[in-house]
Amino acid sequence: MSVQSNKKAVALFSGGLDSTVCLHAARAAGFEVHALTFQYGQRHTVEIEAAKRIAKHMSVENHLIMDLDLRAFGGSALTADIPVPKSGVEADAIPVTYVPARNTVFLSLALAYAESLGAFDLFIGVNAVDYSGYPDCRPEFIKAFEAMAGLATRDGVNGTAYQIHTPLIDLSKAQIIQKGIDLGVDFGLTHSCYDPDSAGRACGRCDSCRLRQEGFISAGIADPTRYQPGMDHHGAS
Amino acid sequence: MSVQSNKKAVALFSGGLDSTVCLHAARAAGFEVHALTFQYGQRHTVEIEAAKRIAKHMSVENHLIMDLDLRAFGGSALTADIPVPKSGVEADAIPVTYVPARNTVFLSLALAYAESLGAFDLFIGVNAVDYSGYPDCRPEFIKAFEAMAGLATRDGVNGTAYQIHTPLIDLSKAQIIQKGIDLGVDFGLTHSCYDPDSAGRACGRCDSCRLRQEGFISAGIADPTRYQPGMDHHGAS
Repeated sequence: MSVQSNKKAVALFSGGLDSTVCLHAARAAGFEVHALTFQYGQRHTVEIEAAKRIAKHMSVENHLIMDLDLRAFGGSALTADIPVPKSGVEADAIPVTYVPARNTVFLSLALAYAESLGAFDLFIGVNAVDYSGYPDCRPEFIKAFEAMAGLATRDGVNGTAYQIHTPLIDLSKAQIIQKGIDLGVDFGLTHSCYDPDSAGRACGRCDSCRLRQEGFISAGIADPTRYQPGMDHHGAS
Repeated sequence: MSVQSNKKAVALFSGGLDSTVCLHAARAAGFEVHALTFQYGQRHTVEIEAAKRIAKHMSVENHLIMDLDLRAFGGSALTADIPVPKSGVEADAIPVTYVPARNTVFLSLALAYAESLGAFDLFIGVNAVDYSGYPDCRPEFIKAFEAMAGLATRDGVNGTAYQIHTPLIDLSKAQIIQKGIDLGVDFGLTHSCYDPDSAGRACGRCDSCRLRQEGFISAGIADPTRYQPGMDHHGAS
């Protein structure tokens, strides 16, 4: 279990656009990829189904879906019963879709998985550009987590460093989409919407839909997303 | 939600001896106590039942029991099907009962709970003396986690520090038991054994039972633990 293998990586993977590009980046870097998806009281399971489709499509080595009910804690529109905002992204505020300590919890579980596998590389698709409101998407958080991980684990104590790879952290949404195209991502399989209908079609109006749409437009790439009928999916009034 | 209250604390609470003393220490320090217990694929639920009894007995403000199945990751005798060792404590080795990144995962979820509550104080009953083999029981790990928490959260970014209280970290088992006696702990309610029988009686032979027994003997206090019949609960051959 504690045998070092540089080839194994644990990749946090939601089935959304960013984490799908991140998963492809892990594969492209030559890692044996162990994808980790959390089923955590999302109001919709469309994202989980997307994750399963993508993992199968990519033939990742392992795809572990773990139940984790963060609704017990409340505090976010993504896990509780607060309406999802549709008024556009507020650049400087921390969005109400922020889940308390989410990336800390996710990275901790990825670390536990990595330690069990004998992996020392973790991938997370955080982005500090379009999600500047989320404190746990910033490079200084990632560095602090790496430092903590080195002290938290058997292998860390024995001198092995854990590396958290954040291949998207400095990229705009358009650059992420372009990177995905370069890596062969099928964006038609990915899901971003915070508020899809029962058929899994995107609302076209939530913060996540808007960022995604703007990204495809900026990248000059056709948006393969399935939107709900009657929605103006470019967010104009 | 982000209103600061110095009086709320989240205390990790397993129902075992150490975390019960820790919970009493949080209460004695004047905090409104929100206890957090994980149901995480333990082979026995005796510990969970003990946690419920103790929380009720203490009338803690909140007791949240959260499902968390760490068995998915494997890697420990406490969560997988590796036999529990009964040959005594190996002082310098990391025990096979070590759960990968356990305290990192537990503290991360406590941090999420704290952020939701507007609490900035976390209590964990780690102990660096008798559990020196566990990397995530050391003061340097706790400090690194605090530093990470300050960068991970909305309130941390706004300048509020999280404090992780470890009232037992420097104490021997005998000192922990003495502290518990001073705080009014009813040790008859607590559970320590890694391998209890169906009636919840302790085996008297696992590492946890041995530490507990030695602690009561050193403290000169009668051991109220219910042991399985026929077991030599002092661990002599």
